[in-house]
Amino acid sequence: MGPGPGNPYPEVALGFARPLLGHLDPEFLTVLDETNDRLRQVWRTSNALTFPVSGTGSAGMEISFVNVVRPGSTVVVGVNGVFGGRMCEVAARAGAEVVRVDFEWGQPVDPEQLADAHPSPDVIALVHAETSTGVRSDVAAVADRKGDALLIADCVTSLGGIPVAIDDWGVDIAYSGTQKCLGVPPGLAPFTINERALERLVPTPQSWYLDLNLIAGYVGGDSGRSYHHTAPISMIQGLHAGLGALLDEGLEASWERHQRVGDLLKKGLVERGFELFAAEGHRLPELTTAVVPPSIDEADVRRRLLTDYDIEVGGGLGPVAGKVWRIGTMGHTARVSNVNMFLAALDDLL
Amino acid sequence: MGPGPGNPYPEVALGFARPLLGHLDPEFLTVLDETNDRLRQVWRTSNALTFPVSGTGSAGMEISFVNVVRPGSTVVVGVNGVFGGRMCEVAARAGAEVVRVDFEWGQPVDPEQLADAHPSPDVIALVHAETSTGVRSDVAAVADRKGDALLIADCVTSLGGIPVAIDDWGVDIAYSGTQKCLGVPPGLAPFTINERALERLVPTPQSWYLDLNLIAGYVGGDSGRSYHHTAPISMIQGLHAGLGALLDEGLEASWERHQRVGDLLKKGLVERGFELFAAEGHRLPELTTAVVPPSIDEADVRRRLLTDYDIEVGGGLGPVAGKVWRIGTMGHTARVSNVNMFLAALDDLL
Repeated sequence: MGPGPGNPYPEVALGFARPLLGHLDPEFLTVLDETNDRLRQVWRTSNALTFPVSGTGSAGMEISFVNVVRPGSTVVVGVNGVFGGRMCEVAARAGAEVVRVDFEWGQPVDPEQLADAHPSPDVIALVHAETSTGVRSDVAAVADRKGDALLIADCVTSLGGIPVAIDDWGVDIAYSGTQKCLGVPPGLAPFTINERALERLVPTPQSWYLDLNLIAGYVGGDSGRSYHHTAPISMIQGLHAGLGALLDEGLEASWERHQRVGDLLKKGLVERGFELFAAEGHRLPELTTAVVPPSIDEADVRRRLLTDYDIEVGGGLGPVAGKVWRIGTMGHTARVSNVNMFLAALDDLL
Repeated sequence: MGPGPGNPYPEVALGFARPLLGHLDPEFLTVLDETNDRLRQVWRTSNALTFPVSGTGSAGMEISFVNVVRPGSTVVVGVNGVFGGRMCEVAARAGAEVVRVDFEWGQPVDPEQLADAHPSPDVIALVHAETSTGVRSDVAAVADRKGDALLIADCVTSLGGIPVAIDDWGVDIAYSGTQKCLGVPPGLAPFTINERALERLVPTPQSWYLDLNLIAGYVGGDSGRSYHHTAPISMIQGLHAGLGALLDEGLEASWERHQRVGDLLKKGLVERGFELFAAEGHRLPELTTAVVPPSIDEADVRRRLLTDYDIEVGGGLGPVAGKVWRIGTMGHTARVSNVNMFLAALDDLL
């Protein structure tokens, strides 16, 4: 019940247990194609280039920026937590002139302020669900105001847990991680990019490993498969299985479950004297941030939850370190029984 | 029996099956520390910063270059196959002036020619075991001639299968992949770097994801653990288990097994009219390249080996496409029974 990874769906173990195939074996390429189809359903997109990047969520962030940012590109970033800050860092290393627009931790990114920050940015970027604060920002409203800019959205903690609609919203590039609401161990970064963004690709990005021009030749599929790097076969087989479990349940059903379980957790925390940290109306169901009452030694109770009850919850980062807990109910972990177990353990300890 | 991935050791499945822990859970950090210790044994190094990079072997190549190459750095690369060529590309994207020294495919890199290519390079790089040709080059002899340069060695297809001795040889930076002679699925890049190279790190490399200064704060361990990116937990648990199997057998025993099985395969191929492609004295036991006799329709027989016998062998790349086979006997796949099964299938088909 930390801020991710959550527990994987049991089906993932069956994916891992499949015999290891070669990365050019037709049988594996079928699994990869199916995985990409499943990702398109979860992203709600028809983008042809939709696939899991061979790295964790942060590699998803890096592939998003290095393929469209040129030296001197103007990149406007909304920052309301750790991961918005990281976007600024990654964009700057790709040579961007970064226009950083800060918002208070616990508050969402304001779409108008973000749009007004620069008259003609090349890229606008924000985090949909900030893992450091438990706040949801309105990506669709930012997309409405993007003008000619490309919009990059970090959906690491949102995909699978709350509505994401890449095509309807008008998001050009988005990435996620497997270990949050998709219910798969960390190691891959689901990624999607539309035609509009593909037309603006950097021809030779600074990263060879994350060069979309080259990777498209392997995952694109239409004109044969040219080897780029060896795909992480087992992780993709695990993702294939986890997405299968998610889609068997149904995407809306998963969103509804995350909401119901998150509400139950928040109610239980408030009843026990915790204050919810994220701004009302913008609280993530899958990640609850709560200010720990001063009467509680947060680090000690957190440690005892782990050692005595096998329950992990996350501490605060940055300005809220030592003050808030971050409690995840993501993917397979989003179960009423887990919330009940956590609250009972908390009652025991307090 | 392709050029990698090979079959994983059965113990790896048990690693994958362990419950998923958080990336800051003390129990997982113990697994990570043990994994790094096991990697030190396999690399034969005491380098403190030895860990699996969160990406495949090509990410290992990229982390090696972007952290020590500055714009204008002179990088001498020995090229005798695909992966030496890839090194030139990765180094150039990091801003290097690349001095490319070509050798015939099938021949090793000549240490003297490499050393004579530039009077004072910043970096010298070569591939220990070329996956595209099945050739071993003499890394120790290059290290003897490196002067003040840093030496980067690609050990993707060598580590675990033939002797590698990072400290004794004087290699400054080396990387590998999990899916070859370590007998683990693809997805991680075992990496090691010595103090001499750490003193020359680029303070802010172009890649945030592969920034060693930041990653060291998580894997370094001595002064607490600062979160950088979420480690690929399950893959690391799998690597931990695979390295356990390898070290239980013993590193020398594994080398000896690879040699014995590779010799058997080469003998069987020669008896059937194949010519060995790699230069004598430089042939890899774990990856045999053989020129297919003109009487054999190589693509058709290769396809039927896969569909009718469940045996994968690799085709040629680049100038030897359609001419050679690349047959792997790596990690758990390096078994006499596999060679016998392959040769029997070949006899059947021919």
